Amino acid sequence: MTAGAKNMAEKGRVVALCGGVGGAKLAFGLARILGDRLTVVVNTGDDFEHLGLHISPDLDTVLYTLSGLANRELGWGRGDESWNFMSVLEDIGAETWFRLGDRDLALHVERTRQLRAGVPLTQIIGSFANSFGIRAEILPMSDGKVRTTVMTPEGMLPFQRYFVERRCAPMVREIAFDGAGKAEPTAQVRAALRDPHLQAIIICPSNPFLSIDPILAVPGMRQLIEDAGVPVVAVSPIIGGKAVKGPTDKIMAELGVAATNRAIADHYRGLISGLVIDAGDAGERGALDGPTHVTATLMSSDDDRERLARETLGFAEKLAAALRAVEAVST
Amino acid sequence: MTAGAKNMAEKGRVVALCGGVGGAKLAFGLARILGDRLTVVVNTGDDFEHLGLHISPDLDTVLYTLSGLANRELGWGRGDESWNFMSVLEDIGAETWFRLGDRDLALHVERTRQLRAGVPLTQIIGSFANSFGIRAEILPMSDGKVRTTVMTPEGMLPFQRYFVERRCAPMVREIAFDGAGKAEPTAQVRAALRDPHLQAIIICPSNPFLSIDPILAVPGMRQLIEDAGVPVVAVSPIIGGKAVKGPTDKIMAELGVAATNRAIADHYRGLISGLVIDAGDAGERGALDGPTHVTATLMSSDDDRERLARETLGFAEKLAAALRAVEAVST
Repeated sequence: MTAGAKNMAEKGRVVALCGGVGGAKLAFGLARILGDRLTVVVNTGDDFEHLGLHISPDLDTVLYTLSGLANRELGWGRGDESWNFMSVLEDIGAETWFRLGDRDLALHVERTRQLRAGVPLTQIIGSFANSFGIRAEILPMSDGKVRTTVMTPEGMLPFQRYFVERRCAPMVREIAFDGAGKAEPTAQVRAALRDPHLQAIIICPSNPFLSIDPILAVPGMRQLIEDAGVPVVAVSPIIGGKAVKGPTDKIMAELGVAATNRAIADHYRGLISGLVIDAGDAGERGALDGPTHVTATLMSSDDDRERLARETLGFAEKLAAALRAVEAVST
Repeated sequence: MTAGAKNMAEKGRVVALCGGVGGAKLAFGLARILGDRLTVVVNTGDDFEHLGLHISPDLDTVLYTLSGLANRELGWGRGDESWNFMSVLEDIGAETWFRLGDRDLALHVERTRQLRAGVPLTQIIGSFANSFGIRAEILPMSDGKVRTTVMTPEGMLPFQRYFVERRCAPMVREIAFDGAGKAEPTAQVRAALRDPHLQAIIICPSNPFLSIDPILAVPGMRQLIEDAGVPVVAVSPIIGGKAVKGPTDKIMAELGVAATNRAIADHYRGLISGLVIDAGDAGERGALDGPTHVTATLMSSDDDRERLARETLGFAEKLAAALRAVEAVST
């Protein structure tokens, strides 16, 4: 453990930006180290109404992952799940392309009920997190409605139709975040990013285009991140020219971007202070302009998650020290 | 089998008025005999919104009973049920006084979705019944909103709060059917009661005050029954001064009515042509004014259900013949 990581582990606060699966794994590692000094700001662009229920896929993945309830094989939903609701939906000819487990369903039904009663999503998620014994603060990126849509040769598809129903098969021409212009960061997100104890902002290895961009599309979010005055470290979701899980590499190709760490660095240019890339991609280091930390980024076990989190925090701490040194020169 | 019952079994149509458990058992017996020549008009006064879902307890009990899916021990819900949704509702501190099984939930979610999309309840239930392989026609008494409320010393309670949450503990002073004045029988209910092949109307052994009265409270329903010109036979829910299941006897006492077949006959006076009572209550026969059929009315097995249904149909057939004879005299 570096002195920096130890320091951050002991008192600093950290904000992580996160989508679903891959990002949630790193958030799990961060939460193990930081406990209640971690705030996870989660993408809600994937949220949608299905069967009259408000579904928040990324938020729930983060809740399940941080509480240890996640299904490690599926990469979504709970591990201890049953599917009797779905089987009857099928019997009665209802829509079954989006799989809802019996236990999982409780969150959707109660969330929908509370939203209709006017309770903000932030408060609902906070209460769920509390019920699940999660010490980290889990925040929707906004309580406003932002909906990721994907322009394909077949026309505009709502995100879940593209992602789940069509299994990312249609070619992506463009990605839009409907409603983002009217959304705003919540008071809780603002407070987390303005916290005087904030020491780092981590961009988890989620899909930059589908999971992180919606967060950054909320007006004021980029400014809040810049104004925080702390290192912003992204962990690259690309290993060996491919995404560990999900369609990141396919989408990058369709958008005309090579699936390289260089492209990830370019995508986050002006926002991040440093990038964490996989040891297998160490050869790409030379092509990257900014500070880079090279390590094993594949997270197969809980220990992998914690180790990568610890190294990422250590890297951020070193960046902070270096940035302070730069400031010392410039005064 | 009497000639009459055989005749009715072969070509006549029958409408049954029905609430939940007890009534559904007789409806099951009738459906076994009549198949698609049975229409069951079901109480929706017990319907309510719970967790943002539209629940129709009596309709679902009829669906589950006629399809053989019902839980015979509980008297509600499905036999092949799991409760994982409820266990998570409990984990997250949501309302759990009304038990919703994982499989059962599919009906509530899909019904709610379709109702919000403007599909009439009648059509939704027809589609569910079809999915469950039910040949009988299952009709809500109305597509309008009727809500049974119970006046107690603690104030007005919505029916399910009284029935499930409070387990019928509060004393009943009065029963009201909110919205009944504005409801109307559906086109399907009207068609069933005006069918030229209609041969009998059966009032199932449901609670007269809580399950049958809401049906009769729909404006025009009584007139449709009277105008049908066929025997109306009620099967008494009282055996030996008690209700087989549910709070009928308790409520009768609280409303100042003795829990006797005489009281049931009085309650339905002017509406029914005959009453079926239990063999154990044969002694009450003398106190009853109208035609009575005495037989074992406790339905423990499927065969009991079918036998009672067959006897009830035979009784109705005999009444029809006698009424025709009366008409012959008067011309």
